[in-house]
Amino acid sequence: MSVDERYVVGVDFGTLSGRAVVVRVRDGAEVGDGVHEYGHGVIAEELPSGDDLGPDWALQAPQDWIDVLRFAVPKALAVAGVPASQVIGIGTDFTACTVMPTTRDGIPLCEAYPERPHAWPKLWKHHAAQPQADRINALAAERGEPWLRRYGGKISSEWEFAKGLQLLEQDPELYAEADRWIEAADWIVWQLTGRESRNICTAGYKGVYQDGGYPSREFLAALHPDFADFPAKLGHDLEPLGGLAGTLTAQAAEWTGLPRGIAVAVGNVDAHVTAAAADAVRPGQMVAIMGTSTCHVMSSDLLAEVPGMCGVVADGIVPGLWGYEAGQSGVGDIFAWFVDNCVPAYYNQVAAANGLTVHEHLTALAAEQPVGRHGLVALDWHNGNRSVLVDHDLSGLIVGQTLATRPEDVYRALIEATAFGTRMILETFEASGVAVGEFVVAGGLMKNTFLMQVYADVLRRPLSLIGSAQGPALGAAIHAAVAAGTYPDITSAAAAMGRRVPSAYVPDRSRADAYDSLYDIYRALHDTFADGDIMHRLRALR
Amino acid sequence: MSVDERYVVGVDFGTLSGRAVVVRVRDGAEVGDGVHEYGHGVIAEELPSGDDLGPDWALQAPQDWIDVLRFAVPKALAVAGVPASQVIGIGTDFTACTVMPTTRDGIPLCEAYPERPHAWPKLWKHHAAQPQADRINALAAERGEPWLRRYGGKISSEWEFAKGLQLLEQDPELYAEADRWIEAADWIVWQLTGRESRNICTAGYKGVYQDGGYPSREFLAALHPDFADFPAKLGHDLEPLGGLAGTLTAQAAEWTGLPRGIAVAVGNVDAHVTAAAADAVRPGQMVAIMGTSTCHVMSSDLLAEVPGMCGVVADGIVPGLWGYEAGQSGVGDIFAWFVDNCVPAYYNQVAAANGLTVHEHLTALAAEQPVGRHGLVALDWHNGNRSVLVDHDLSGLIVGQTLATRPEDVYRALIEATAFGTRMILETFEASGVAVGEFVVAGGLMKNTFLMQVYADVLRRPLSLIGSAQGPALGAAIHAAVAAGTYPDITSAAAAMGRRVPSAYVPDRSRADAYDSLYDIYRALHDTFADGDIMHRLRALR
Repeated sequence: MSVDERYVVGVDFGTLSGRAVVVRVRDGAEVGDGVHEYGHGVIAEELPSGDDLGPDWALQAPQDWIDVLRFAVPKALAVAGVPASQVIGIGTDFTACTVMPTTRDGIPLCEAYPERPHAWPKLWKHHAAQPQADRINALAAERGEPWLRRYGGKISSEWEFAKGLQLLEQDPELYAEADRWIEAADWIVWQLTGRESRNICTAGYKGVYQDGGYPSREFLAALHPDFADFPAKLGHDLEPLGGLAGTLTAQAAEWTGLPRGIAVAVGNVDAHVTAAAADAVRPGQMVAIMGTSTCHVMSSDLLAEVPGMCGVVADGIVPGLWGYEAGQSGVGDIFAWFVDNCVPAYYNQVAAANGLTVHEHLTALAAEQPVGRHGLVALDWHNGNRSVLVDHDLSGLIVGQTLATRPEDVYRALIEATAFGTRMILETFEASGVAVGEFVVAGGLMKNTFLMQVYADVLRRPLSLIGSAQGPALGAAIHAAVAAGTYPDITSAAAAMGRRVPSAYVPDRSRADAYDSLYDIYRALHDTFADGDIMHRLRALR
Repeated sequence: MSVDERYVVGVDFGTLSGRAVVVRVRDGAEVGDGVHEYGHGVIAEELPSGDDLGPDWALQAPQDWIDVLRFAVPKALAVAGVPASQVIGIGTDFTACTVMPTTRDGIPLCEAYPERPHAWPKLWKHHAAQPQADRINALAAERGEPWLRRYGGKISSEWEFAKGLQLLEQDPELYAEADRWIEAADWIVWQLTGRESRNICTAGYKGVYQDGGYPSREFLAALHPDFADFPAKLGHDLEPLGGLAGTLTAQAAEWTGLPRGIAVAVGNVDAHVTAAAADAVRPGQMVAIMGTSTCHVMSSDLLAEVPGMCGVVADGIVPGLWGYEAGQSGVGDIFAWFVDNCVPAYYNQVAAANGLTVHEHLTALAAEQPVGRHGLVALDWHNGNRSVLVDHDLSGLIVGQTLATRPEDVYRALIEATAFGTRMILETFEASGVAVGEFVVAGGLMKNTFLMQVYADVLRRPLSLIGSAQGPALGAAIHAAVAAGTYPDITSAAAAMGRRVPSAYVPDRSRADAYDSLYDIYRALHDTFADGDIMHRLRALR
């Protein structure tokens, strides 16, 4: 089979659906795709059995993921019109810190205990383990655990150890039953290969694996005596990104319609594979995946402790480099909240009359204004602040409203606030000695040209854009091509199969100067409210 | 004629209309009323001649006020079914600092010069004299003018001297033509009596008349050489409130249908006469007239310099006591802005389906929440801050928004913010040694029972309510009864003719405790943003 005839499949497991894409190995052409919506979606209020869940719970059903293999992959193949025999590998990416208890054989405990909440996979946005995260952070700070600084000084309630400790404390019997505590990213690969493997990425970013090990027995025992052996449930022989996890089983071949025995790539994370899809895995290429929230990933040959970053992990994006991750916990979510809750009927009517969405209508109105005319500055903390403050209990703020303030003014101020938040992250990286050479945008928000221009102006940098509308799935496919041995490493595979448009937006100097004045105010507000005094008191009152 | 058969007429000149009410002298019963909408309303964008006005201009037409006499008074008499012969006096109240240039005979200059903007009466909310006000304040502070402290350290751009200086500087020819510079409150009385009189109230609160005189020639000359003689255009023999300004002329009798020769009371201000209507003119009875903005008036036997008050004037509300005025520049205006600009269609639909206004619907939803559940605190500075910061360039702020924040949450936070603003004013009075014994509410917002309860809880005080829906007109009528000699003074007339419901709302202790926590945050925000650093920068960018 010539290289022109070879294809790989990438499968992206998102929060509400999974997407498969068939990609030509030679040049990354996306020749067909298929989507499958999860039957259970996010399980948030009650279990399928009807049992109630507490506030902040968010679970998923493993069968939904298997169904993506069963339906989305064959659909993508059919659309592509590519014979399955030409597919030489499959790669996957998943939401990170979606984590679950299983038997030694990888059977999810929710199969045997469907009525027990802790038996189900906890989705990344399950936030009910915050008390556990708080205790982990406090103890680690008190003991001066060296790994803590690799995570901006705080781990998240979303991560493996916080969720694991919640399991132990709230359902110790089930904790004992759980031979394995595994990221869905690895579990799905297990289903494809029949063999457990653990990837470096989730272990490092979400499993607090640093310098060859997990947190110490002493540390874990101090949290809870029975937590000392928790790492026994985790993976230890971590496998490199782009590595070969195994080959496709007969069962998985039946599900997917792909040939038995083809290469299956080591599990990976949606944001991290996107860097490959944008051909942006070299040191200093920061990729911002901008959607409901924004995730920043960047490789560097330098190790530094950047305040408020989500994590720095050796080989965390590509082998041989330090992988950095940072994030903004609310971006598109904030705009959606605003449109749903804060825009009067008149705007819906005018938008509809002009064949626009309300987002498009507000954007058009906002785009007409000179910088600063609205007299507003907002803090984009409606969903807390991930980087650089790492504080989920912060909240939004807007200042400058008058009786003449209009919805498009606030909408624009919110867009600008998220751009200022990004600038704060970039400046923090650079102040820590980690250079950001190129800023590459991926994700749904890149379609908003006004928003992109605001970012270019605020950041005073050109923006590159990823050249694919399905970055994660393409990125997963690129990893499959590496696992299948077509390319020697992710960097060369990304160069051949990934794509981006450099300098798609360039800053305008006079607007950039004007934004500097607004950014000064943003920074003053940021510093005033960063200690959380006022916002934490409000959170407590809620 | 027995006292039972005697009536007085009160006429209230508002911003958009005038209202006349016929009131029984014996007990203040309101037996008939009539309203006349101004034909010109607020003249804001262009003159009736078509000439353009600048931003922040707001003018009125004197003919509109005469039309109130011609139409509203006869209407009220007709509704009352009271023979005109039983009416023994007429009193008026006006918006304060609506001020105009006239000839020596009181003929408005806009009659001869209709195409010149400065020839027209400048409505209270004409804000185009802010640069002049700024210079007056700066110079007064620099020279340590003693009167400045009587006005909380700053005079307003709305007042007589700022508007007069604007006239001089922008149309010196017309300034020279203007023999008189007179409040509409006094001009309308001139039209009724044929004789110029000037009332203590507007001269003191808006004309900077203190301790027997206006600002010195030296001070005025330092502002502009030709401004030194400005006080020659003003009144000097100030007449006491409730005094007899003169008797009704034949012309005015023809306009109104009232008997020629009846008593006409000295001019007065809408807020200040309302205290009489509420029978709340004794020391320590603070009356809050709550509408689009809130005005606080209170008499006291003590002179103190309360930070940020609008003014303290000897005999300013009733003869013999110091009259205090304070204010909040945006209250109902803020709620209206929110409903017009920040509430999605769904709320309009549900409100309409339930036969409610959006205000009522939001209020009902907000009322269901326990205190603090929304996790929000706002600063009610959308229209600047009058008391206690005296800074028109401040702006609104809200903190605590999350992706779960709903319109009723913000609406409630805005209501609470205005209550916190009131508490700040009360505490400032008391900290200055001026006791506030009773808090009496008048004005349109008193109809909102939820809002009233919030105020009672936040202030930790019972609220009294005025017993009339047309307080200013009733108050003007009470002054007419004093001018006519039926009562010896305003206090006794108010006791007989005014009315209020004491302790109509009482605070709930547990809610009050909860509000204390929110108020602490309000105060922290207040102190953080009071210096105006951030908000003034935003204002400058606008």
